[in-house]
Amino acid sequence: MAKNLHYVLLLDCYGELLTDRQRQIAELYYNEDFSLSEIAEMQKITRQAVRDSLRHTEQSLIRTEQKLGMAGRIGAMRSCLEQILAVSDSQQITQLARDGLELL
Amino acid sequence: MAKNLHYVLLLDCYGELLTDRQRQIAELYYNEDFSLSEIAEMQKITRQAVRDSLRHTEQSLIRTEQKLGMAGRIGAMRSCLEQILAVSDSQQITQLARDGLELL
Repeated sequence: MAKNLHYVLLLDCYGELLTDRQRQIAELYYNEDFSLSEIAEMQKITRQAVRDSLRHTEQSLIRTEQKLGMAGRIGAMRSCLEQILAVSDSQQITQLARDGLELL
Repeated sequence: MAKNLHYVLLLDCYGELLTDRQRQIAELYYNEDFSLSEIAEMQKITRQAVRDSLRHTEQSLIRTEQKLGMAGRIGAMRSCLEQILAVSDSQQITQLARDGLELL
């Protein structure tokens, strides 16, 4: 089960729409980098139950992104600000672009 | 029942999470500026049912924004790009900022 970094962004956008249990397992896996077996032991469930929860969560995150597209918008904004930062020779604009990136 | 423009932004962000019926009524009211009575006639329901649907939708949009905060992030990004645009004397940066605003 390869970790897909795209889910880190989706989890950041939509994690609050998941159940507490789903979010907890997904955060341990994607944000804190625990293995399926480690999470199973922590949560006192089987490794298969962890895997099923993650699969269900991933499908739910993808469906929400298909509906709302916020992760795509944030990615596009990040790219826009990074381009501004790359060509800026104004201290003021550089600071504004950095502040903008912090908000994303 | 005063129309609150904040809901236009929330509807743009989260409209796809509403039921088809809720979204349809909210779009007629907020985006197409029909009155409660006009929507009632179109949908063949009472004016009170339209009002109840809108109230329910507004509560749902506010709860979702409290969880996800995307409308706030988009507002902050818009302000950041507008500030860049206001101080930019580079054609390239002006164009990038304009493109960014188009994405929001």
